[in-house]
Amino acid sequence: MTEQERSIIVKVRVEPGERVRLKERDPRDSSLFRDEKETKAATSALAKDIDVLQDRLYAEGSRALLVILQGTDTSGKDGTIRNVFNATGPLGVSVTPFGVPTKTELAHDYLWRIHAACPRRGTIGIFNRSHYEGVLVEKVRKLSPLALIEQRYDQINAFEKHLTENGTTILKFMLHISKDEQKERLQERLDDPRKHWKFNPGDLDDRVHWDEYQDAYETMLQRCSTHHAPWHVIPADRKWVRNAAVATIVKATLEDMDPQYPKAQWEPGDFTIS
Amino acid sequence: MTEQERSIIVKVRVEPGERVRLKERDPRDSSLFRDEKETKAATSALAKDIDVLQDRLYAEGSRALLVILQGTDTSGKDGTIRNVFNATGPLGVSVTPFGVPTKTELAHDYLWRIHAACPRRGTIGIFNRSHYEGVLVEKVRKLSPLALIEQRYDQINAFEKHLTENGTTILKFMLHISKDEQKERLQERLDDPRKHWKFNPGDLDDRVHWDEYQDAYETMLQRCSTHHAPWHVIPADRKWVRNAAVATIVKATLEDMDPQYPKAQWEPGDFTIS
Repeated sequence: MTEQERSIIVKVRVEPGERVRLKERDPRDSSLFRDEKETKAATSALAKDIDVLQDRLYAEGSRALLVILQGTDTSGKDGTIRNVFNATGPLGVSVTPFGVPTKTELAHDYLWRIHAACPRRGTIGIFNRSHYEGVLVEKVRKLSPLALIEQRYDQINAFEKHLTENGTTILKFMLHISKDEQKERLQERLDDPRKHWKFNPGDLDDRVHWDEYQDAYETMLQRCSTHHAPWHVIPADRKWVRNAAVATIVKATLEDMDPQYPKAQWEPGDFTIS
Repeated sequence: MTEQERSIIVKVRVEPGERVRLKERDPRDSSLFRDEKETKAATSALAKDIDVLQDRLYAEGSRALLVILQGTDTSGKDGTIRNVFNATGPLGVSVTPFGVPTKTELAHDYLWRIHAACPRRGTIGIFNRSHYEGVLVEKVRKLSPLALIEQRYDQINAFEKHLTENGTTILKFMLHISKDEQKERLQERLDDPRKHWKFNPGDLDDRVHWDEYQDAYETMLQRCSTHHAPWHVIPADRKWVRNAAVATIVKATLEDMDPQYPKAQWEPGDFTIS
């Protein structure tokens, strides 16, 4: 890990138990990187590094990486996936979006559909939203009793600990945008007919609850950033900063995992191909 | 569709009921394209077109594309996925590899796991091997009674018809390589320590049955290339020809599907974002 990489991680990682005040974290912060053009080129290079490391992860076949993306509407979850993982492509990466639970999913506990979608060994799994909706939208919109939601922080920590102890490394990213930036992005969806399909009138209802959501995020960050599955607060008003930060942390993590091509149980001379 | 695209499709598509003789189809054929460099650049451009079309497919949200890749070991299924679909990335594309069925899968009929993995509306699904293993390896290795296998061709046609009638367009590609080319590629896996993990001694057992496999492929092509779900025999000894042919057909098919951004049920003026 380079010094720059380490300083980026330190700056955005939430320490276990740390009280994060989102208002004190500037969503437009670009101090982690120098100029935009150079950073974009570096991000493309990182995406290629991630591809090479993913190939080793796949060859090794014994561990997985789970990347969890959370963030308010328009925070750029899709764009992050495109920019960080397109060089790797769909072969070793699977994306699971978690929307409103179906009837079947609601007939189970809230981690049931999550567990089913966890990446198999050798692959990278990306969750576009996740089990954290259970302490975000469900809390703000009062979809579950508060007493039940209270229990979930520890349940989630236990679940994620289980996953990491069984070979899955977990990275969690909260894409942090400002209320003004969201306004701009929503307005863009209204103004550009090609983006109309992305506009969901329900997003405006969520916007009304902006402050409550920020509170819920803060509690989530404080209670569920753990050594085994850390949260990162990514300044996401500038897309190039967001992409660069996430790519840096994914690449450094894969490098740390250091997956190895497995040793063959045979010698090349054992075989003749006729 | 351009004239060149049409001529490529006509050349590799198997007409319903057509008796394909694989020996008469040259796996090294590159006559479909001009020079290698130009073709590679064109394939990259096609991959970008596919990405744009996929975005429309996703926005439309009512149909899916299923791409089925079959071919002997080393025929280049993974490489095809990388080259044709990496510009699209993992966001709207899911890849499902079908290996030896698990105990749970064997406790169901052979189409059960296939149906479960079919792409949801708005996405592209890629099968790396598929239900056709049920008339290939199971036939050659006598894993199922021949009488049962005989019934499968019609069952598969009915299943695929059902999928297409319910909004999934199907493209099937057989990656056709020569026995010599396979020898070279297997030898490469033995010679290059970085590729050792890809070498499976069991592949040599399959190679012994080469002619029987070719027979099984020919029967499959004749009986399961249908108007609703056509087979294509892709000359695959040259990777750039293989990639270009598959990319051309996928792009032309998506263009034919012509997915549309949905019309919003509201007027932009209906909303004010505060």
